[in-house]
Amino acid sequence: MSSSPTKTLRIGIIGFGPFARFLAATMIKQGHTLTATSRSDHSHLCTHLGIPFFREMDTFFDADNDVILLCTSILSLSEVVRSIPFHRLKRQTTLFVDVLSVKQYPRDHLLQVLPPESDLLCTHPMFGPESGKDGWTALPFVYDRVRIRDEDTCSRFLQIFQTEGCRMVAMSCEEHDQLAARGQFLTHTIGRILSEMEIKSTGMDTKGFQTLVQLKENTIKDSLDLYCGLFMHNKFAMQELRNLELAFLTVKQKLLEKMEDK
Amino acid sequence: MSSSPTKTLRIGIIGFGPFARFLAATMIKQGHTLTATSRSDHSHLCTHLGIPFFREMDTFFDADNDVILLCTSILSLSEVVRSIPFHRLKRQTTLFVDVLSVKQYPRDHLLQVLPPESDLLCTHPMFGPESGKDGWTALPFVYDRVRIRDEDTCSRFLQIFQTEGCRMVAMSCEEHDQLAARGQFLTHTIGRILSEMEIKSTGMDTKGFQTLVQLKENTIKDSLDLYCGLFMHNKFAMQELRNLELAFLTVKQKLLEKMEDK
Ligand SMILES: NC(=O)c1ccc[n+]([C@@H]2O[C@H](COP(=O)([O-])OP(=O)(O)OC[C@H]3O[C@@H](n4cnc5c(N)ncnc54)[C@H](OP(=O)(O)O)[C@@H]3O)[C@@H](O)[C@H]2O)c1
Ligand SMILES: NC(=O)c1ccc[n+]([C@@H]2O[C@H](COP(=O)([O-])OP(=O)(O)OC[C@H]3O[C@@H](n4cnc5c(N)ncnc54)[C@H](OP(=O)(O)O)[C@@H]3O)[C@@H](O)[C@H]2O)c1
Repeated sequence: MSSSPTKTLRIGIIGFGPFARFLAATMIKQGHTLTATSRSDHSHLCTHLGIPFFREMDTFFDADNDVILLCTSILSLSEVVRSIPFHRLKRQTTLFVDVLSVKQYPRDHLLQVLPPESDLLCTHPMFGPESGKDGWTALPFVYDRVRIRDEDTCSRFLQIFQTEGCRMVAMSCEEHDQLAARGQFLTHTIGRILSEMEIKSTGMDTKGFQTLVQLKENTIKDSLDLYCGLFMHNKFAMQELRNLELAFLTVKQKLLEKMEDK
Repeated sequence: MSSSPTKTLRIGIIGFGPFARFLAATMIKQGHTLTATSRSDHSHLCTHLGIPFFREMDTFFDADNDVILLCTSILSLSEVVRSIPFHRLKRQTTLFVDVLSVKQYPRDHLLQVLPPESDLLCTHPMFGPESGKDGWTALPFVYDRVRIRDEDTCSRFLQIFQTEGCRMVAMSCEEHDQLAARGQFLTHTIGRILSEMEIKSTGMDTKGFQTLVQLKENTIKDSLDLYCGLFMHNKFAMQELRNLELAFLTVKQKLLEKMEDK
């Protein structure tokens, strides 16, 4: 059981993509000890950040981590989890944390494959490199304490976000997915639609149009994998897509009817 | 010819709706002299603002105006213009200005019916009671000097907006409509779609989703007449509606194809 006198954690990151790098910067600032592994070779960047990088998952697991932080893409979760050598875990009571933008899918999948002694915290920081670039104050951090026995490690991990001023939102994975389908997935979809339309600033932008241009630009900074993952692994997303289509057809119908009236 | 030593104008407003009231506040502040007429009875409000209100168009035109400012809805333009007693104009060289959110339509219509001696300035302030509530600095003001012989009155009218810090954008009515279809009409359409979907803030809004909730709330503050007018009287709007539909279907197709790949 981890009973270190300090509050800092030893955190092993799996998947050192854009979001992991964004989180790592703050974790390092807070004094936590990081290691990382990923599909691609990020040694150069990690050396620059002072983070030991492991090309192989096996050697990565030789380190003694309080927390294993899953930052891999939604679409690659099962593949990545399949490659985790759980038998090599130094401590069976390791806390596994995921930050995937959908929640029921990693929750159900991890509950199936994690060693019974391992704790599980499923989280979704509702911000990223764009929205969180000026600090995390008041930005929502959603989490579900799926299986927690080691209260100390779990609360020390949550403290990372509390310290930065996040609004801590305890919520079941299912409820998260319902709200995220209506919120984040819809927002990304509109951003992707605007990107297909190739909308651009003109000399006469209204403030409303400016926000749409900004939304489009922010959306395409996230990977297409992330967007597809929001749809494919959230059972509520298909319905929101239909709702969007229906709403569009309703608005179009109102316009055409008005045209015919005249 | 108007050669008043002061810079203030006598402006007669036709159509005292939300936008006219918004403009009037600033015109009064700048010291201009206003009168108003409208379909509905706005006497009470106008008394409160110190603006003589005329129930009848005929008596409205007895006043000696430098400028007649058309602030009526796009959908009611032809009806309202039909009711204007041009023969009663005190000065044939009156400057007619419109602020409709589409431009070719009022331009073509007014050129047909205005007395040949009357000047015509077609404008579109690209802001309103919401976006312009903290001042007009840097907000675009689009205008087309369609028919100007009295330079002095025209520039004194444009000065109203220049004084407030607007970005003055001279542009043909046709180019305005092209850009407005892609910009403002698209933005309103997305706002209307989000309103149909009844999207609401949750405890876990991303910043992107928050901007969409705000967009929806701002959009529905404008009348449905305004929105329908943006579509029905802009020849480029139908194509943008099709572009939006195509872009949606393309994004949906990408998601479904990705789903089938897996
Ligand atoms: N971006 C955000 O603002 C944000 C916010 C909240 C949560 N999230 C979540 O955080 C996670 C990471 O997001 P992200 O923005 O960094 O981008 P992402 O494209 O969702 O994920 C990139 C990461 O996934 C790894 N990966 C992708 N395909 C893989 C495969 N087949 N096998 C192994 N690894 C694979 C990449 O490894 P390599 O780099 O080694 O190639 C990289 O580390 C996602 O689950 C996302 O939903 C993101
Ligand atoms: N709202 C904005 O932010 C904004 C920005 C730029 C330009 N504009 C343009 O400014 C104009 C006015 O816009 P708005 O926001 O005030 O709302 P609107 O709904 O477009 O227009 C309302 C005005 O139209 C009059 N009207 C409507 N139907 C009429 C009819 N059948 N006969 C006579 N008058 C009729 C109303 O008269 P009563 O009030 O007497 O009923 C009212 O004065 C529109 O052309 C709009 O495109 C608006």
